[in-house]
Amino acid sequence: MSGNSIGRTLVLTCFGESHGPCVGAVIDGCPAGLPLTAEDIQTELNKRKPGQTAISTPRKEEDQVEIFSGTFNGFTTGAPICMIMRNRDVEPEAYEQIKHKPRPGHADYSAYMKYGGFSDYRGGGRFSGRVTASYVMAGAIAKKLLGFIGVEVLAHTVQIGKVKITKNVSFDEIRENVYENPVRCAVPEPAVLMEKEILKAAEEGDSVGGVVEGLALGVPVGLGEPVFDSLDSDIAKMLFNIPAVKGVEFGAGLKAASLKGSENNDEYAIQKGKVVSLTNNAGGILGGISTGMPIVLRVAFKPTSSIAKRQKTVDLIKMEETEIELAGRHDPCVVPRAVPVVESCLAFVLADHAIRAGKIPQVLGTKK
Amino acid sequence: MSGNSIGRTLVLTCFGESHGPCVGAVIDGCPAGLPLTAEDIQTELNKRKPGQTAISTPRKEEDQVEIFSGTFNGFTTGAPICMIMRNRDVEPEAYEQIKHKPRPGHADYSAYMKYGGFSDYRGGGRFSGRVTASYVMAGAIAKKLLGFIGVEVLAHTVQIGKVKITKNVSFDEIRENVYENPVRCAVPEPAVLMEKEILKAAEEGDSVGGVVEGLALGVPVGLGEPVFDSLDSDIAKMLFNIPAVKGVEFGAGLKAASLKGSENNDEYAIQKGKVVSLTNNAGGILGGISTGMPIVLRVAFKPTSSIAKRQKTVDLIKMEETEIELAGRHDPCVVPRAVPVVESCLAFVLADHAIRAGKIPQVLGTKK
Amino acid sequence: MSGNSIGRTLVLTCFGESHGPCVGAVIDGCPAGLPLTAEDIQTELNKRKPGQTAISTPRKEEDQVEIFSGTFNGFTTGAPICMIMRNRDVEPEAYEQIKHKPRPGHADYSAYMKYGGFSDYRGGGRFSGRVTASYVMAGAIAKKLLGFIGVEVLAHTVQIGKVKITKNVSFDEIRENVYENPVRCAVPEPAVLMEKEILKAAEEGDSVGGVVEGLALGVPVGLGEPVFDSLDSDIAKMLFNIPAVKGVEFGAGLKAASLKGSENNDEYAIQKGKVVSLTNNAGGILGGISTGMPIVLRVAFKPTSSIAKRQKTVDLIKMEETEIELAGRHDPCVVPRAVPVVESCLAFVLADHAIRAGKIPQVLGTKK
Amino acid sequence: MSGNSIGRTLVLTCFGESHGPCVGAVIDGCPAGLPLTAEDIQTELNKRKPGQTAISTPRKEEDQVEIFSGTFNGFTTGAPICMIMRNRDVEPEAYEQIKHKPRPGHADYSAYMKYGGFSDYRGGGRFSGRVTASYVMAGAIAKKLLGFIGVEVLAHTVQIGKVKITKNVSFDEIRENVYENPVRCAVPEPAVLMEKEILKAAEEGDSVGGVVEGLALGVPVGLGEPVFDSLDSDIAKMLFNIPAVKGVEFGAGLKAASLKGSENNDEYAIQKGKVVSLTNNAGGILGGISTGMPIVLRVAFKPTSSIAKRQKTVDLIKMEETEIELAGRHDPCVVPRAVPVVESCLAFVLADHAIRAGKIPQVLGTKK
Repeated sequence: MSGNSIGRTLVLTCFGESHGPCVGAVIDGCPAGLPLTAEDIQTELNKRKPGQTAISTPRKEEDQVEIFSGTFNGFTTGAPICMIMRNRDVEPEAYEQIKHKPRPGHADYSAYMKYGGFSDYRGGGRFSGRVTASYVMAGAIAKKLLGFIGVEVLAHTVQIGKVKITKNVSFDEIRENVYENPVRCAVPEPAVLMEKEILKAAEEGDSVGGVVEGLALGVPVGLGEPVFDSLDSDIAKMLFNIPAVKGVEFGAGLKAASLKGSENNDEYAIQKGKVVSLTNNAGGILGGISTGMPIVLRVAFKPTSSIAKRQKTVDLIKMEETEIELAGRHDPCVVPRAVPVVESCLAFVLADHAIRAGKIPQVLGTKK
Repeated sequence: MSGNSIGRTLVLTCFGESHGPCVGAVIDGCPAGLPLTAEDIQTELNKRKPGQTAISTPRKEEDQVEIFSGTFNGFTTGAPICMIMRNRDVEPEAYEQIKHKPRPGHADYSAYMKYGGFSDYRGGGRFSGRVTASYVMAGAIAKKLLGFIGVEVLAHTVQIGKVKITKNVSFDEIRENVYENPVRCAVPEPAVLMEKEILKAAEEGDSVGGVVEGLALGVPVGLGEPVFDSLDSDIAKMLFNIPAVKGVEFGAGLKAASLKGSENNDEYAIQKGKVVSLTNNAGGILGGISTGMPIVLRVAFKPTSSIAKRQKTVDLIKMEETEIELAGRHDPCVVPRAVPVVESCLAFVLADHAIRAGKIPQVLGTKK
Repeated sequence: MSGNSIGRTLVLTCFGESHGPCVGAVIDGCPAGLPLTAEDIQTELNKRKPGQTAISTPRKEEDQVEIFSGTFNGFTTGAPICMIMRNRDVEPEAYEQIKHKPRPGHADYSAYMKYGGFSDYRGGGRFSGRVTASYVMAGAIAKKLLGFIGVEVLAHTVQIGKVKITKNVSFDEIRENVYENPVRCAVPEPAVLMEKEILKAAEEGDSVGGVVEGLALGVPVGLGEPVFDSLDSDIAKMLFNIPAVKGVEFGAGLKAASLKGSENNDEYAIQKGKVVSLTNNAGGILGGISTGMPIVLRVAFKPTSSIAKRQKTVDLIKMEETEIELAGRHDPCVVPRAVPVVESCLAFVLADHAIRAGKIPQVLGTKK
Repeated sequence: MSGNSIGRTLVLTCFGESHGPCVGAVIDGCPAGLPLTAEDIQTELNKRKPGQTAISTPRKEEDQVEIFSGTFNGFTTGAPICMIMRNRDVEPEAYEQIKHKPRPGHADYSAYMKYGGFSDYRGGGRFSGRVTASYVMAGAIAKKLLGFIGVEVLAHTVQIGKVKITKNVSFDEIRENVYENPVRCAVPEPAVLMEKEILKAAEEGDSVGGVVEGLALGVPVGLGEPVFDSLDSDIAKMLFNIPAVKGVEFGAGLKAASLKGSENNDEYAIQKGKVVSLTNNAGGILGGISTGMPIVLRVAFKPTSSIAKRQKTVDLIKMEETEIELAGRHDPCVVPRAVPVVESCLAFVLADHAIRAGKIPQVLGTKK
């Protein structure tokens, strides 16, 4: 038990269920002296707020953050920062049918068995995508911390269902375009196709998956602690905690498996007095340590498990086979709303490692 | 710093460098009463021992394990188990040229920068694939622990370079064939092609990558602690600590991104009085918790970074561009020797979670 | 940084400041199926609530708990339990004078230096005794968990200033009397003297310290993990986190230093078919593992640091010597209100270790 | 299980039994660039080596350290440092009688019960005082790290049995005298009496306890992480892991319980431009954070549990009462040999916190 904390120097403890009073986070280890207001958090939370477009769940939530501790006069104090966001638009009765009939693709069955039937099944309870709001709260702080050392974190949708972007995308395109379309794709044309892919699936009572790419620029050389707290393993661990993630790859990723060493190795050169590599198949990490090149990773999401189509399941009390049809509200594709979550997860791990490696000091700003 | 321990109830602390006196492991949290001898460990270590076939490094090592603590009269005592394996065939002088000239694809540059030039660069030092012997030591114990609850862990090569296996492989085929050919592929025909792929790369002074599939059978429902110590995130973290791993996916993996929910969801049924799913796109894990279905994952390895071909690099002292040619001994493909390492990593995480979830008791066998 | 979590299987993360919005706790790792309501927590919180007697601070707080997560239909779910208790009777302006003038005996100076002047100094901020309400929240849950395996935790005041109890006190006396008098002493006569000792100090604008004894009955043999997570070391660590604690001893404690081995060793016997020791100088722990005898410990508290008397201090901005007179509300003796805190700390560590040792299962009660 | 690691940034994992092949330690998180040789460790180990005086066990051990990893060319590399010290003078057969007859005062009974009879009982096995050699290995490194920032750690015997030192002892006296007499007392006269106290107990087939005072000078302000990783709680936790410790107190300690606030508070002043306190009843720690004043603590040791006198015990197989007489070799008083162990424990925690607080950098010395 007790797996709801992550990080070593910057530690996120999260709590809350989809249809309980709130979801929240305690962020411990944040250096003192960081300017921080509720607005800083809110800006990031708004990116993943439901009910904003035709392709997201109609659940209406304000997702308004409240800060309970750890700040004073607009700055962090070094004490743990607790934040919550209340659940308002809850429909608990909508979930009575799943109490003993696990929805295919969801955690219903494994959770039921693990927790002896005591887990909160309403809307997936603790297993809802809604818990990722906690990750975003932590990510908002992490991004501000990374800003102190010039690290920027980006993410964008590169695939929805069978639609992939095929051209190389510049950092500027990502920065400018990602939050300009509902699918969070940096390239306008495929963005339109991706949206159609989602709407088509939704009409069919079905859902689609996709892929998000995450990037970090300006990462200093030397983040990551071999061998077990390597930077890539910690990033991967964080990303696999986003519901629906089924694969994570760095740099050339799975494609590297079919390359030759001479094709995959990134040769070194000196540019502007700095060591750089001429390619970045490593995705910015070698031996578990950041190289100073951009960190590049991709995260594969499965299609949303909640679909309207009739599906086979079992009744766990009667122990007999049955079927289920889900009427509830859900995103036909989690990928667009996962973009800020991937950003947050990547930012969180980088900030944790930057503090750990001594790159972010424990008191920011001037002594008061 | 201090990232050389992993696990929560079963904890592996590892140490040692490629060309230092030894590599070793301390395994803490192993239940008392497990029958354990050096032979148990040796059997597993032999699977990854170098110098056994034409496609592995000519480095000759006996890789003989010595147990220093934690056992008494042939049983574990509940105290930490320390084991080492000495390094014998070391060629430290072979590495003088890389002291200030980082090899492309290796950790040389990032380690040099992180540790201020103090890291042991000989043979990659702490970043050598040789450290995975420590993982195998832990894996040997983990497999024995899992045996108590009927869990079996398997791994096999499914891709080397551009050669992939295309047919479905049964568990029996894997069990019987994997250690029968040098590439550790469960299907004889592609195994031959894979070996050729490696030999061809070696002749060209080049290297190739590949993919290993890991499986676990008989896993009880309920392993994994949401949200941050989910079973898949912990397995992924462990696997990304194997040098050269660039991607990890579970079940349908990256392919799930292009599936519909109705295609990807695993519907439930009852077979022999037990809840099962009719497909296993989830790879045996939902919501971070094991479902009782086989755990299925794939790990992508990049091609070996050490290649004979001349490559561009930089001199870190003179800060000028230069080239490097590596003469040293190396595997032209790490994948075959990684098969027992993937087994070990998967077994280790499962054993840790099985103890954590109370599925493996803290004292095995009868009180003496 | 990031020291606001404690425990291994039952993990308490706490947050909040004396004059911020609230203090709170996240308890992770609580088994599913524990009946738990806000009243269960409130009962314990009421024991340490301020403003109840003539000898405690006049600060008036309702200390009403709100549960935010982790329970469903009156039972714990296995998910983290977040609770808060709002601060209402705050007088922030009362603390402006201490902003740069550290109060002797308080954390003001060390906190100012550590956090670069960013820490919340109002009422001690994060260093206030008020944070122990979080410990009591966790203790309330821990006591309920321990109840499942028949473990009972008690505490009582054995010394206030120069008044000590001299007779041996039975468990029944403690159970019946402790919460019957304002000093939480199990023996009525010294209780009266203790109260006078406090009132006298208060009249003089001064304060007094004291000693609390903690006990645990029915503890199973085998709790504690040598060598570093031994039961006594974990209990001591928890107790030293109560503000004002300056010493902790087990069993014969410091007195053991002047005993002979033949006097101090607890000889074994068999009573009612069970191994017992004829004395309990060990205080129920040998080799860091519980022996099955009652756990007995004593905690020494220094006198409250806040006193009305004029004291020498320094101005940290002007870097010159000055004086300070404190007008604020404070307990002239923290010991009486520390009694439930010691109970909670002891209960928390025992519950953590009982889960860790597999003595408390991960699902309580019958599957639903 | 798995309690054999301690520390957050500097992590000690220890292993080994009294009569197994060796005892050892893995120190992880040591900054790179620290000059370190086996001699550095040996010097400290020699202070606790058995068989050196008339008042210590006649067991003869060379206690020669071997370093297995983590150093290169005389400097630490940032990788984990594994060290062992072999056991040579073992008499396993001497312990057959205690296999099922627990010695009073020892961990025999609790260990037997916890580990189902599988624990190594020879010489106390994992519970032997010999495991503290691992603490000294870690302490040797910690002292060198602390030397970089001008922190000095001292310890001295202040009580043996009923003999206490009564005068105040200067730091110089401790530095000069402690290792000049067999009891490690800084004052020559009581040292003689203490030695007699031990010899007298030994002659009677009995043993005595005592008290060690530990001090740290030059500690920077700001070490310690409230609320749960406070400096005092972490030091106390480490100290309680030394076998035979029954009490730990800081500064005025238990005596503070009977003081008034006005007596116990340490008033501030400015000396040589630095904030100091005029007294040091706090023992250098307030709110769990170092204040810059010397850290002062006392550790109470019970008398050695192994005594020659006949004692009552039970036979755990036959479940009947019986008696035991111990012939084995043992120290009649553990206190003198505990002095370097207390030094090591204190140094280890301070070094861990100094790295954690960023006071010791992660690379020492000049880049090579």
